[in-house]
Amino acid sequence: MSQNIYDQGEFFENYIKLDRQTKGLDGAPEWRQLRAMLPELKEAQVLDLGCGFGWFSRFARSEGAAYVRGIDLSAKMLDNARSMTSDDAIAYEKADLENLTLPEMQYDVVFSSLTFHYLVSLPRLVAETSKSLKRGGRLVFSCEHPLFTAPTTPNLVVDQDTGRKAWQIDAYQREGIRTRTWFVGGVQKQHRTVGTYINLLLGSGFRLTDYVEWCPSEEELVKNPGWEVELIRPTFLLIGATKD
Amino acid sequence: MSQNIYDQGEFFENYIKLDRQTKGLDGAPEWRQLRAMLPELKEAQVLDLGCGFGWFSRFARSEGAAYVRGIDLSAKMLDNARSMTSDDAIAYEKADLENLTLPEMQYDVVFSSLTFHYLVSLPRLVAETSKSLKRGGRLVFSCEHPLFTAPTTPNLVVDQDTGRKAWQIDAYQREGIRTRTWFVGGVQKQHRTVGTYINLLLGSGFRLTDYVEWCPSEEELVKNPGWEVELIRPTFLLIGATKD
Repeated sequence: MSQNIYDQGEFFENYIKLDRQTKGLDGAPEWRQLRAMLPELKEAQVLDLGCGFGWFSRFARSEGAAYVRGIDLSAKMLDNARSMTSDDAIAYEKADLENLTLPEMQYDVVFSSLTFHYLVSLPRLVAETSKSLKRGGRLVFSCEHPLFTAPTTPNLVVDQDTGRKAWQIDAYQREGIRTRTWFVGGVQKQHRTVGTYINLLLGSGFRLTDYVEWCPSEEELVKNPGWEVELIRPTFLLIGATKD
Repeated sequence: MSQNIYDQGEFFENYIKLDRQTKGLDGAPEWRQLRAMLPELKEAQVLDLGCGFGWFSRFARSEGAAYVRGIDLSAKMLDNARSMTSDDAIAYEKADLENLTLPEMQYDVVFSSLTFHYLVSLPRLVAETSKSLKRGGRLVFSCEHPLFTAPTTPNLVVDQDTGRKAWQIDAYQREGIRTRTWFVGGVQKQHRTVGTYINLLLGSGFRLTDYVEWCPSEEELVKNPGWEVELIRPTFLLIGATKD
């Protein structure tokens, strides 16, 4: 079974205070561009992989989706998600994405936010996702950018003379586990190259249609000076693909 | 007009000693994977953008291409290319890719090796290239990888305690000119993000079919230990795309 940090008390207490949890989708800076990759959701059959508190699942219904299936490994997240809706057309379900099996040609849209970089068996899930989409159906997902996950030890070094900050890339081509501290120690992520993400899609019958390495606008930088680090290297990769 | 380092004496004297010049295509480690992206060349109309010594142009003819047009800015390179063939079906031509205009629906294959990262007006050239390809035609190119071009000052730092080497990424999202020393000082390249390369293609009527961040195999590393730096960050990006 996958590592389930979300059900650890200390992690959870901090995680729920993030803007993207308290404010929902609009609290996530990358949401506007991710949303632009989505097709019309009216009447759509939707799958939400790693649904968390269900913000996207409820958004899809508010946009007219016929049915939304939200899947997460965390019981705490699902309890929270269920407490926020009484909508019978949303089905929240506890399951491990590492070994999920999906029905054939069922969905119009598969969505996943910041989940894929945790998965060891992502190739398997992408293949299942492809199988589960109708022809012309859309996969829209975000993950941590390979430049963000690449370092064996994440480190933004400041040059003493120039003040120039630099992100230390020491193992871009060495894929695999990266252990990070994020509220708690020992959080395990999977580093994959951009090439691997793209080729997983191309090799599973997808056509790449959208590719965004998220970067704040000048306006957003004025409001959030801390986001300047995003100019050094992106944190988020957003991808849209169509099932052929 | 573009910077033309290739016609500078000191640069040229060193450049012609590179394996990829003395040995041709097989002297370039990335050639095997670039070649795999090419379609059948028999009877093809081929365009070679930044043809240099003409290694690819002659290869295309040896594979049965009907006609090859090789374009380069450097008179020295073209003299050299012309001296190596008397084939009437290869036309070498001096022109600046920054403002090249191409005929409509003329070519089956457009190839370009390590040239695009020098061009300021790459968006224009990609649009011209798209226009010049027949439907189903192929664009296959290599360029310096955005991770390689990103630093304002290229710098592989060695950690004194661990011996770990790291490539310093300080401005991935700031596109534009990068000045490098390569045999001579003042060599100007254009840094673009992976997102920009991909979106130039998607926005110009291409379908992305091949994406390789070149990395040596274990075997190649044994023969060329110096290539280990490629595991830290890739130097070459290879892309294949089909005109829709």
